Amino acid sequence: MAIKLYGLPMSTATTRVLLCLHEKGVDFELIPVNAFSGEHKQPPFLSKNPFGLIPVLEDGDLTLFESRAITAYLAEKFKETGTDLVRHNNLNEAALVKVWAEVESQSYDPAIKPIVDQYLMAPALGKEPDQSIIDTNLEKLKKVLDVYETKLSRTKFIAGDFYSIADLHHISHTYLFMKTPSASLINDRPHVKAWWENISSRPASKKVGEGMSFGKK
Amino acid sequence: MAIKLYGLPMSTATTRVLLCLHEKGVDFELIPVNAFSGEHKQPPFLSKNPFGLIPVLEDGDLTLFESRAITAYLAEKFKETGTDLVRHNNLNEAALVKVWAEVESQSYDPAIKPIVDQYLMAPALGKEPDQSIIDTNLEKLKKVLDVYETKLSRTKFIAGDFYSIADLHHISHTYLFMKTPSASLINDRPHVKAWWENISSRPASKKVGEGMSFGKK
Repeated sequence: MAIKLYGLPMSTATTRVLLCLHEKGVDFELIPVNAFSGEHKQPPFLSKNPFGLIPVLEDGDLTLFESRAITAYLAEKFKETGTDLVRHNNLNEAALVKVWAEVESQSYDPAIKPIVDQYLMAPALGKEPDQSIIDTNLEKLKKVLDVYETKLSRTKFIAGDFYSIADLHHISHTYLFMKTPSASLINDRPHVKAWWENISSRPASKKVGEGMSFGKK
Repeated sequence: MAIKLYGLPMSTATTRVLLCLHEKGVDFELIPVNAFSGEHKQPPFLSKNPFGLIPVLEDGDLTLFESRAITAYLAEKFKETGTDLVRHNNLNEAALVKVWAEVESQSYDPAIKPIVDQYLMAPALGKEPDQSIIDTNLEKLKKVLDVYETKLSRTKFIAGDFYSIADLHHISHTYLFMKTPSASLINDRPHVKAWWENISSRPASKKVGEGMSFGKK
């Protein structure tokens, strides 16, 4: 039975899982959730995820939510298939993947997400972007990227000289961020820029990026 | 060579790791960091964690930061020792541990931390607690706890009928939250209350809780 992924191809949390599925080359079925009608806040969906958020992954009897937990599960279950995203044969490298995946979750994402939301989501909802939110979070993001610039001058990818979920988790929001007027934060830091160009040009990243283009599909 | 943990026994991020070390019964040395003098923002410490945050764990040549990454590393490295915190022999249970650990990280902690900070940290810094921050986050926390109440009516612990890092990660901030005027949010939900009494009375939890008492230790 193929894996079922409930979500939307332009949702950043859904794309995190899609990137992982494509890196693994695993068969799956994407089942669209009508977020605009609030389908994910209604009982049938709430039985899959009581928090009412996409994506949800079903693998046989197992139902999972939280995109970063799903990628970690897929990376472990399919560790011998496609790209090894968690360095499952090396405890120390696996630990560094965990560290930088947490940095993405605790420091990078909380800074970049509000910027993307203000620049791209607010206008889509008929609102003016709140410049003070953008400015506050640009300052936070700069500090994180300064650390990344030094780290990426030493290793090819964020956790080491190997691609992993620590890199992959960055792609969804950075892909949208690069369409905003603040993309220079990435482009002005040569090692961060080279890293971004590298990880965003992977076949899986290109494929998932196509689905994130608003208005296209 | 014993594991070295740089941190402070009253820091919630440090206690997350301490809880794990005690559950595992692993030897370690706690090396206090003088956070008040800003030791963690100075070069010697910044070479261990470029973000200047405690805790840092050193295990031989390996240097790790981000408390939740450290617990995941310890749980994996010492999987045969002490409490099995990641259900390493059961892929599906391990996946559910990941899901609920993410819920703690993405939903529970972002709501409970500002409440604890306002009630307990603000006065310690000579400031008045900001009631609007408290109120906003109490609303968020209530919604999370309503989901927990239903979940914990079905399973003994948050991810299933087994104690795991998904439970453990909740302890640090909940321990402090229970000392605030809003503790009723936990106590008014019978399954959440029973869960909290269970996980906070474990020997490892009691031991680490002693170090969290401000003014003592």
